Amino acid sequence: MNQRISVVEKILDANDQIASENRAYLEAAGVFSLNLMASPGAGKTSLIEQTIKNLSRDVRLAVVDGDIATSLDADRAAAAGARAVQINTGGDCHLDAIMLRQALGQIDLCEVELLIVENVGNLICPANFQLGTCQNVLVASTPEGADKPYKYPGVYRGVDALVINKIDLLPYLDFDMAYFRRGVQILNPGVVTFPLSCRSGEGVEAWLEWIRESIRAFRARYGSNGMAKHVRD
Amino acid sequence: MNQRISVVEKILDANDQIASENRAYLEAAGVFSLNLMASPGAGKTSLIEQTIKNLSRDVRLAVVDGDIATSLDADRAAAAGARAVQINTGGDCHLDAIMLRQALGQIDLCEVELLIVENVGNLICPANFQLGTCQNVLVASTPEGADKPYKYPGVYRGVDALVINKIDLLPYLDFDMAYFRRGVQILNPGVVTFPLSCRSGEGVEAWLEWIRESIRAFRARYGSNGMAKHVRD
Repeated sequence: MNQRISVVEKILDANDQIASENRAYLEAAGVFSLNLMASPGAGKTSLIEQTIKNLSRDVRLAVVDGDIATSLDADRAAAAGARAVQINTGGDCHLDAIMLRQALGQIDLCEVELLIVENVGNLICPANFQLGTCQNVLVASTPEGADKPYKYPGVYRGVDALVINKIDLLPYLDFDMAYFRRGVQILNPGVVTFPLSCRSGEGVEAWLEWIRESIRAFRARYGSNGMAKHVRD
Repeated sequence: MNQRISVVEKILDANDQIASENRAYLEAAGVFSLNLMASPGAGKTSLIEQTIKNLSRDVRLAVVDGDIATSLDADRAAAAGARAVQINTGGDCHLDAIMLRQALGQIDLCEVELLIVENVGNLICPANFQLGTCQNVLVASTPEGADKPYKYPGVYRGVDALVINKIDLLPYLDFDMAYFRRGVQILNPGVVTFPLSCRSGEGVEAWLEWIRESIRAFRARYGSNGMAKHVRD
């Protein structure tokens, strides 16, 4: 058992080292980046579509899409108007920093201000693998049920922002928002939260404004991408 | 890379060996068993609650509940009236045959006709680890979206039955049932399918009848559990 733990720790150490390099590379390039995590079908791709639709006039966007088998999500991001790079994990249940590094090699970062990485649909393993993005975001969804923070604490604990998608379905569900929020507060006190519906558009503006603000704060700290002056500082 | 594949293959071979032993043990004991797999929040626990509620007068039931952190699901199964054993995977994203073997040691199988194993909420890794149950069942849910068979082919390919939960939400979703079913047919032609709603109860009776029929067929092949004569042959 100790041997196994030691192997797992070495894998995670190696991943963290490459994640640090990715982070430094993205900061030097002036690219603000998000790692979106969620269970299958919570709405990562829909959120990316909404983000592209609303921000692509002001912000140059690229998407890296992790999937175990298809390019369906990258196709949707590309159709919505973003540069999209597909990572097929070949069955692996999460992205890791090496996969992101390889994907970054396929993107001209001079052309990018905002990079969104869509992780594999899974609430467990992606939480253990830092990619090197500036922020980690979890997309929860109301039909999943209000007990998810309690049952999947790792991913709730580690994120910088939480989207609660599909609030348009609340009238048709027994979703106890107070219980859900209590779980979130225990694990991640004060985390910024965006209840919204990608389908109806309700609440999406607050999410977009958070991205705009985050890009401004990122630039104030790391400088702009020389080619990218679309969001006013 | 070859070394990694070889390690993974050895782990899966060892798992399959123990799964075979679990299968033989359950067959010898006359216990029909199901492995329920699904994404987080698709409704595995709700389906188990419905099954206990409707079958526990006729069938002696036990539940083994896999979870990464809590005993919330086992508590719900116990509250619904079944013998429930909790497996905390300690962060692991799936159950394996060794975990099930350990859990079986805590159950008096003479008292059991139907064993339901609730796997960890994850559409990817559980598909790679046979547990040794008689049947594998996938619980899909309509809010997850109709593209899931295409995106998570492994789990759709390997199951003996498919539950499509939350059909009560169909009027409020853009779920393309024909597209979903086409994907299922490509991966798993003719798989028995149960569209239902654990919330409204619609469609649940067909699922229950499938379990009753499966128990009868299992007994015709492997014999009854000596202590268990509740379902008429």
